[in-house]
Amino acid sequence: MLEELKQKVLKANQNLVKYNLVTLTWGNVSGIDRKKNLVVIKPSGVDYDKLKIEDMVVLDLNGKIVEGKLRPSSDTPTHIELYKNFKNIGGITHSHSTYATIFAQACKDIPCYGTTHADHFYGTIPVTRFLTKKEVEEGYELNTGKLIVERFKGLDPVVTPGVLLAGHAPFTWGSSPAESVKNNLVLERVAEMAFAALQLNPKLKALPEHIINKHYLRKHGPNSYYGQIKPGKKK
Amino acid sequence: MLEELKQKVLKANQNLVKYNLVTLTWGNVSGIDRKKNLVVIKPSGVDYDKLKIEDMVVLDLNGKIVEGKLRPSSDTPTHIELYKNFKNIGGITHSHSTYATIFAQACKDIPCYGTTHADHFYGTIPVTRFLTKKEVEEGYELNTGKLIVERFKGLDPVVTPGVLLAGHAPFTWGSSPAESVKNNLVLERVAEMAFAALQLNPKLKALPEHIINKHYLRKHGPNSYYGQIKPGKKK
Amino acid sequence: MLEELKQKVLKANQNLVKYNLVTLTWGNVSGIDRKKNLVVIKPSGVDYDKLKIEDMVVLDLNGKIVEGKLRPSSDTPTHIELYKNFKNIGGITHSHSTYATIFAQACKDIPCYGTTHADHFYGTIPVTRFLTKKEVEEGYELNTGKLIVERFKGLDPVVTPGVLLAGHAPFTWGSSPAESVKNNLVLERVAEMAFAALQLNPKLKALPEHIINKHYLRKHGPNSYYGQIKPGKKK
Amino acid sequence: MLEELKQKVLKANQNLVKYNLVTLTWGNVSGIDRKKNLVVIKPSGVDYDKLKIEDMVVLDLNGKIVEGKLRPSSDTPTHIELYKNFKNIGGITHSHSTYATIFAQACKDIPCYGTTHADHFYGTIPVTRFLTKKEVEEGYELNTGKLIVERFKGLDPVVTPGVLLAGHAPFTWGSSPAESVKNNLVLERVAEMAFAALQLNPKLKALPEHIINKHYLRKHGPNSYYGQIKPGKKK
Repeated sequence: MLEELKQKVLKANQNLVKYNLVTLTWGNVSGIDRKKNLVVIKPSGVDYDKLKIEDMVVLDLNGKIVEGKLRPSSDTPTHIELYKNFKNIGGITHSHSTYATIFAQACKDIPCYGTTHADHFYGTIPVTRFLTKKEVEEGYELNTGKLIVERFKGLDPVVTPGVLLAGHAPFTWGSSPAESVKNNLVLERVAEMAFAALQLNPKLKALPEHIINKHYLRKHGPNSYYGQIKPGKKK
Repeated sequence: MLEELKQKVLKANQNLVKYNLVTLTWGNVSGIDRKKNLVVIKPSGVDYDKLKIEDMVVLDLNGKIVEGKLRPSSDTPTHIELYKNFKNIGGITHSHSTYATIFAQACKDIPCYGTTHADHFYGTIPVTRFLTKKEVEEGYELNTGKLIVERFKGLDPVVTPGVLLAGHAPFTWGSSPAESVKNNLVLERVAEMAFAALQLNPKLKALPEHIINKHYLRKHGPNSYYGQIKPGKKK
Repeated sequence: MLEELKQKVLKANQNLVKYNLVTLTWGNVSGIDRKKNLVVIKPSGVDYDKLKIEDMVVLDLNGKIVEGKLRPSSDTPTHIELYKNFKNIGGITHSHSTYATIFAQACKDIPCYGTTHADHFYGTIPVTRFLTKKEVEEGYELNTGKLIVERFKGLDPVVTPGVLLAGHAPFTWGSSPAESVKNNLVLERVAEMAFAALQLNPKLKALPEHIINKHYLRKHGPNSYYGQIKPGKKK
Repeated sequence: MLEELKQKVLKANQNLVKYNLVTLTWGNVSGIDRKKNLVVIKPSGVDYDKLKIEDMVVLDLNGKIVEGKLRPSSDTPTHIELYKNFKNIGGITHSHSTYATIFAQACKDIPCYGTTHADHFYGTIPVTRFLTKKEVEEGYELNTGKLIVERFKGLDPVVTPGVLLAGHAPFTWGSSPAESVKNNLVLERVAEMAFAALQLNPKLKALPEHIINKHYLRKHGPNSYYGQIKPGKKK
């Protein structure tokens, strides 16, 4: 069942290690089959180097386990809430990568300070508020998903493929599990450079808008001209 | 004698290298057999990649060597004092990992600034005072153990599995040698992120208490729901 | 066609990974055959570990593709503009290496704070201005090349083999593709040390001029005495 | 000739790479045979992974090459001057390791802020003044050696096995080539931790003297008790 998607989710979780985005088991990647409305996610607390394809957990959008012997990531309700609300995404990554987490802990969003940022995230990467005591008690992981959706009112999750949870860490997403991990890596690099650029110049301003537009649009959208275009295939 | 524990202590010492927590021979891990009241510890000044199981030193709680041809870590009296006073721990790690040592040198404890911290340490990670000249002269390593115990008056070492020695470096502990090394790694990551978050926001406040509680308790205690629960086994 | 140069450009691109100068596909190296006035450059958006010699793209100085099935790096017009104006260079590297990019984002040039810098870059490493909206719209990559040339009025690109693009990242060059990558690595190290030295001493001054001269000249020019001199070969 | 010493010097140079202390060819290690008064040193500008035992250069204390086909490190006169003045050292290392170089560039010496420092360097690690224009012109590398000797008036190079050259980088030494590299690594770690501890607490004071004494003396001198003592062998 969903063997191809499971393979992609497995590989994407392993890439968290390859890209140096995780310590111990502090991260998880999921993917969705939009036709069947089924989500595949990493099991909770299992080491990346021991993960096997049959460990992947399949759930429906009500959070009911459809296949799998292990318990899914404890963050599963957050993933599902995002899939329900962000209809154009195909994969989600949560990690505690160092510099993105530092911005989350400092409760600061990340303005677009450079073209590395503009190449992948169109404008500021937002930070959420904290959940209230009541929201935590009612359902921490589900309400974390709702909190992200609330923060994205007026924002397009496709051009801003990630968020910083206040006091916690980043969530990123993308068209596939692999793309969501790449966006996690991009966010980590962008955060590291924003951190140090602010040390060097505390009055740093965001990049001029015409440069932000140029960089984002040369990599994305109908007139993009980065990478190889193959007929019949997405870049 | 104690072959299984020796193997665990050997492996845990090697993990100091794997997790990038040590330079040269600046770290040591021990474990205790609570039934026999015997401690197994790394020999002093031996490279991790040359360590063999027969190099492990076995001592009783009076610090008498029971087995082993090599001299034990010079920090052995500190380890033993902790085992005597913290009855629920099974392993201890000392390292000079970079960021934990930086906080120790700056004589600053680490408030809980994020969920990465709250997932593993319940509240502030404390820093000790300096030993007095008299305490140093009387017995440096033993009094270092006593200093930690003094600092933990009113604290539970099970939920706060580590400490920063002023001007020196961290000690961490856990239910086993392996867990004590993991807690050393967690402390290092938490310290690194606290360091940079304070650079980014010098007025940074600790995480709201209801989020600290939620994160610690979803990973620990009777109602925890992180990881895989196997009947008859601890998680 | 140009097999030797293609091999050098391929190897130089792979060295971006070896020297830890790139994330994902954020960098490209080119080389020029000055007799034939042909440029060899990396294809756009292709992973370094999948690059093959036949993927290299050959262009003339009008930007016309002479050989190659893939699209060249989107930064190709910048490379060509530099080759046209800096007659003594044989290779060009663009990367988003962390600390050089941080200085670029902070819009700060890098004065010569140490002998590591003086050994390779003779004086300050300059930062450009931002391109205007008009310049971006007219031709972003070509005008980026022109912007660098403008910034080098009165500077010798041979002794200052690199530049920081405001808000973007570094370009470096050298006598060959390999040398341009080495200069990218040098710039990254120099930037990292300048960053931290400024944190440690915000009033830091440039190195005394007599030491800058000594260091640059003992490695470069007719009286240099660093490295091995082999008859009939350049050092 | 001096095969054993050459082997040690070769290995020590390769350890610069293993310990991540060098970029490109920015470092060199030498050793001395005190009976024959001959120095073995790395050739200039040769990659560490291509170094062979027959590439090592042998010189007398007048700087005359006694054996070897390659040119010695351009820093050779500095090494020789140190061997002539510091009679109890057996090996010397020069590198541009990141954080030691940052302190050198910031012209700041490193007070003993922690026990990691006290375990290996007894008290402050000093920084020199800059050489004058006249000193540079007369003989840069020789006068660099003299500058270090001048800075050590009243200091014992055996207990302070390293120095920071203002605006340049560290030199360290030890009882053997291997020990000089280890001290270079220690200095790098100590500098990194001093750097960040000063960011965290700009009013940071040196460690209390009784703790400095304890740590240095438990690892060094007649009453040391760190490591393994083997009869007939130095520790």
